[in-house]
Amino acid sequence: MGQCMKRYSVGFDFGTESARALLMDVETAQIIATTAYAYPHGVIDRSLPGSGKPLPPDWALQDPFDWLEAMEETARGVIRQSKIDPVSVIGIGVDFTACTILPTTTDGTPLCCLDTYREEPHAWAKLWKHHSAWSQCERINQLAAERDELWLKRYGGAICSEWVMPKALQMLEESPLIYRDAERIVEGSDWIIWQLTGDLVRNSCGAGYKATWNKKDGFPSPEFLSALHPALVDLYTHKMAGAMVVPGNPAGKLNAKWSKRLGLPCGISVASAIIDAHSAVLGCRLAKPATMFMIMGTSTCHMLMSEREVLVPGISGVVEDGIVPGLFGYEAGQAAVGDALAWFVKNHIPPEYHDEAARSGRSIHDLMSAKASILRPGQSGLLALDWWNGNRSIPSDASLSGMLIGYTLTTKPEDVYRAIVESTAFGARIIIENFIHSGVPVRDIMAGGGLTKNQFVMQVYADVIGRDITVTTEQHASALGAAILGAISAGKSKGGYDSHTEALVSVTAPVLQVYRPIAGNVEIYNKLYAEYKRLTEYFGHGKNDVMKLLRSLRE
Amino acid sequence: MGQCMKRYSVGFDFGTESARALLMDVETAQIIATTAYAYPHGVIDRSLPGSGKPLPPDWALQDPFDWLEAMEETARGVIRQSKIDPVSVIGIGVDFTACTILPTTTDGTPLCCLDTYREEPHAWAKLWKHHSAWSQCERINQLAAERDELWLKRYGGAICSEWVMPKALQMLEESPLIYRDAERIVEGSDWIIWQLTGDLVRNSCGAGYKATWNKKDGFPSPEFLSALHPALVDLYTHKMAGAMVVPGNPAGKLNAKWSKRLGLPCGISVASAIIDAHSAVLGCRLAKPATMFMIMGTSTCHMLMSEREVLVPGISGVVEDGIVPGLFGYEAGQAAVGDALAWFVKNHIPPEYHDEAARSGRSIHDLMSAKASILRPGQSGLLALDWWNGNRSIPSDASLSGMLIGYTLTTKPEDVYRAIVESTAFGARIIIENFIHSGVPVRDIMAGGGLTKNQFVMQVYADVIGRDITVTTEQHASALGAAILGAISAGKSKGGYDSHTEALVSVTAPVLQVYRPIAGNVEIYNKLYAEYKRLTEYFGHGKNDVMKLLRSLRE
Repeated sequence: MGQCMKRYSVGFDFGTESARALLMDVETAQIIATTAYAYPHGVIDRSLPGSGKPLPPDWALQDPFDWLEAMEETARGVIRQSKIDPVSVIGIGVDFTACTILPTTTDGTPLCCLDTYREEPHAWAKLWKHHSAWSQCERINQLAAERDELWLKRYGGAICSEWVMPKALQMLEESPLIYRDAERIVEGSDWIIWQLTGDLVRNSCGAGYKATWNKKDGFPSPEFLSALHPALVDLYTHKMAGAMVVPGNPAGKLNAKWSKRLGLPCGISVASAIIDAHSAVLGCRLAKPATMFMIMGTSTCHMLMSEREVLVPGISGVVEDGIVPGLFGYEAGQAAVGDALAWFVKNHIPPEYHDEAARSGRSIHDLMSAKASILRPGQSGLLALDWWNGNRSIPSDASLSGMLIGYTLTTKPEDVYRAIVESTAFGARIIIENFIHSGVPVRDIMAGGGLTKNQFVMQVYADVIGRDITVTTEQHASALGAAILGAISAGKSKGGYDSHTEALVSVTAPVLQVYRPIAGNVEIYNKLYAEYKRLTEYFGHGKNDVMKLLRSLRE
Repeated sequence: MGQCMKRYSVGFDFGTESARALLMDVETAQIIATTAYAYPHGVIDRSLPGSGKPLPPDWALQDPFDWLEAMEETARGVIRQSKIDPVSVIGIGVDFTACTILPTTTDGTPLCCLDTYREEPHAWAKLWKHHSAWSQCERINQLAAERDELWLKRYGGAICSEWVMPKALQMLEESPLIYRDAERIVEGSDWIIWQLTGDLVRNSCGAGYKATWNKKDGFPSPEFLSALHPALVDLYTHKMAGAMVVPGNPAGKLNAKWSKRLGLPCGISVASAIIDAHSAVLGCRLAKPATMFMIMGTSTCHMLMSEREVLVPGISGVVEDGIVPGLFGYEAGQAAVGDALAWFVKNHIPPEYHDEAARSGRSIHDLMSAKASILRPGQSGLLALDWWNGNRSIPSDASLSGMLIGYTLTTKPEDVYRAIVESTAFGARIIIENFIHSGVPVRDIMAGGGLTKNQFVMQVYADVIGRDITVTTEQHASALGAAILGAISAGKSKGGYDSHTEALVSVTAPVLQVYRPIAGNVEIYNKLYAEYKRLTEYFGHGKNDVMKLLRSLRE
């Protein structure tokens, strides 16, 4: 190739409602084109497509064929949009929501695509936010704690109902035939790579964070699995077989079938996949220790890297090589952030507010943020526990629920909106303090994701946490991270990069914006934070289990 | 008078926004005609009429001339409507909101009607919901508790900022000249009677429930008053002088001036007045011990009679002859019931629900009730503390606030609506159990008031309380009670009745509807009620004072 020839990489970002392709200039990490495509069936949470078979509460499925359709449409979209010659594309990277798993045959056919199983909910892909395996999860955590399993400690002492083991156990218990016939159980990300290359490999990010795999110790033992359920014994050895590959290392080469469908060169490198949140760390060119990166969207994912492994309570996981090779990647999470605000805006905003937003040409979120931003800290009179979707960190319990306290007859919608924003900031502060307290330093706090566009929200976070928060304005960080992985997997010889470090120092740095705490606000929020922690202690740590009772009565 | 000649009584019901006259057939208690008239100045809570002088927050005044205008218009209205000969009217009764007090000269001229005082807010009538005397009230309660005053115990250990003593002390402290020139301080009810008859008498209902008067012990001592404020010492002996008359006993005779204005016979009997809520007990023909009567509207008032006096914690008051002669009338209250639902509906219902209500021609409350009624107990996943306007019974603390716990991302507006209804029912159950526990039996539970038209609400109450609830469908119970008092005051010789008992057994019984608890629902609500009590204990009794902190940060 001539020196002046541009090389490109394509990153595919598979989200909850849609997928996106991003075409990146390999040399600068500049975004050349990006296209999104909404999944035709979206999130399947009420009834199965086709049969209309109703789903129980807390189910969330996807149709794997939606992913393929979206991949084809968006790949062709970015090439069309950019007008580049596809021959200059050197690599493909994929990031995906996780844990989003599906059962397949040995040749990768999803069971839900077989006529026999089409009406069987357990044959479909379970989306990350499929939340009905919580009773299985409780039993797993209890048994692992009783047996003092080392792996449990890497996940803060409790795994989450969203992960592979609870979802697999739910399948086994509720639909033993599907479990028997699920010759492979695979993350959506790895399944996409499998389609593109013909090879089933597992990415160490998904396996480490969602399937309790560890670089030194591997998966939990068959003894543990059979103590949980005798038929579960071969989950890892058989159903989850496949080589483990670090994200960005080559997973295979683009095969002829998919070269044709995507309109990209046959044989180019396809990188081992990565979880969408973790991809955003790379997309924002962050790969150094002691920098916390919060990806704030529907939920918030907190990522932090360190040279050493510490067993921190309440984290989602610590995974060696989980984000970049050579570092331990820590992850913690808040289960509902933007989601809680979206819930509020959808369910609890009266018509006059919608009219006012329409008259002034603003979105309802912009209007609510504007109204809430005028209030001083404490003025709402409200305090919330931000557990609308359970708690994922400290106290790490999916059966917890949201709370609002302090209502009066003069409480207005913007008071509640502000209290919800504040509560998510208190939740983030608990996570940060927990890392520091456990011996994992947090020197800088960075934030990215959709919510960071909201200046009101970011100022509340700076005031509540009491520290500078630096926002990266990268819009498509996950897709960009995937494209960077595609370039790394291609290697220098093909015009890409030979390592993560090389890639991240070579490309252009992102644009940054800093939010600084305001002293008077910090003081008030310190008082409210003390109350938040006290309520967390009371409702989250077994002193009053009313949230659990309420959940059980609901079901 | 011939035997076939019908006799009538007129009841005047002075409410918050309007007054009503009701013409009753004395023999049957049948309503012949009723007319309402809105006060021209309504509730004066922003600025004084005329001068436009702005009022501080939490003020609520009325113009006494509005009452007179409404009385004249409605009296003429019922005569015109019924076409009866006014000569067959034998008595007049009056019920009124309380504590609604005004300062007057010795001849009954309201100070606010004198040019000198027209621009002085303290010269006007303070409506029951004038809430700015709370700091005075706190000091009164503290001093009375320190001095171990017996009278305090009759009011559950704390009086309310709405009552005579805090309102008078506020007047004295904020406007000493008005206090000095207020030769009389009088309930609106007694002032109306004073106008009609020329005589100032005090009704034992208003005095007992709102002015801390007791049949045996009289008013609080001058020693207590002067310890509170030296200039307050003559409040009861001078400014509140006047004979104490049981509601329904004759207060005087209709004088010539008002005979002319109302178009009713000169010299007919005018009964001593009664508080509106207590009048409704008579209007529903209830005057027996151990029958709790809940008047459910914006707030709920719980009335109960007993042959003996017990000092019950958290009640609003116990007054001998307070409702009917010879019995001790107990009162307890919930500060926000319909008000909490109105708050929710005003602030938290999204446009689609309003559209749906409009399309189906229903009010938004009807729509919400219909949606909420489909849910089974526990299905909302929510539990609330119904303290949107503080708590008025147990734990009797106005600084408490509302709470909702159990929110998830699938919580819908009807879930919250139902949870608020349930929380008010839990609050009512606490009050009922508190009476029983304290030794005041509750054999039957009756309910009246606007909220009882809502079948969904009433079934929730029956299920939560676990007992039959009998609803009286009497629409104008307070005005009817006043008319019954008018007939009693006239006496048998004039075609009326010689006693309350005689009146209440003679007239036709009201139409009743019984709501019976459903066993399965009771069982679930017993579980939720245990949690409600536990949260009440935690947040209401000093274990966690976060509500107080939130209130102080808000102010």
